[in-house]
Amino acid sequence: MSDFTQVTVTKAANIYFNGQVTSRTLTFADGRRKTLGIMQPGAFEFGTQAAELMEILSGELDVQLPGEDGWRRIQGGESFNVPANSTFSVRVLSLTDYCCSFLP
Amino acid sequence: MSDFTQVTVTKAANIYFNGQVTSRTLTFADGRRKTLGIMQPGAFEFGTQAAELMEILSGELDVQLPGEDGWRRIQGGESFNVPANSTFSVRVLSLTDYCCSFLP
Repeated sequence: MSDFTQVTVTKAANIYFNGQVTSRTLTFADGRRKTLGIMQPGAFEFGTQAAELMEILSGELDVQLPGEDGWRRIQGGESFNVPANSTFSVRVLSLTDYCCSFLP
Repeated sequence: MSDFTQVTVTKAANIYFNGQVTSRTLTFADGRRKTLGIMQPGAFEFGTQAAELMEILSGELDVQLPGEDGWRRIQGGESFNVPANSTFSVRVLSLTDYCCSFLP
């Protein structure tokens, strides 16, 4: 799926880590939300409220998921899930384009 | 206007200058297009095909418009127009969130 149709897009960006991570919020007719974002190379820690599906559209990063000691290498076309109310860490190796879906 | 409703959003980002400038494309029901983008600090030159309205949502930059010798300081909340089939230069002073409307 290369497009999202009939969505509401928030005009202002979400800006984190001094702009090293930015995203746009999409809201669907049924109230579901996704963000489309860009991560510059660097190391970042994120906290979740809802559970998330993180699809990596392009780029490369290592992710450390909650409760895991090791890091997983994730490349464009791959994805990972993050539980609700948790934190996870990423090391972005090359500019990363992502789609984050907030799960019910 | 803080939201755009009933739009189609292209999932993959537009990535320029090694990710120093990125944007998302929005297509409206009548075929009009806008991009919502982020510019990292730096100097960039852009070419237009259609005429553009560039709204700066936040951040700060200097712009040199086609045919002008000088630079104009533009801040969040301000905007500028660029003619079709031209080039313009920006010096981004702080992370800039923008909305570019392609004009008929």
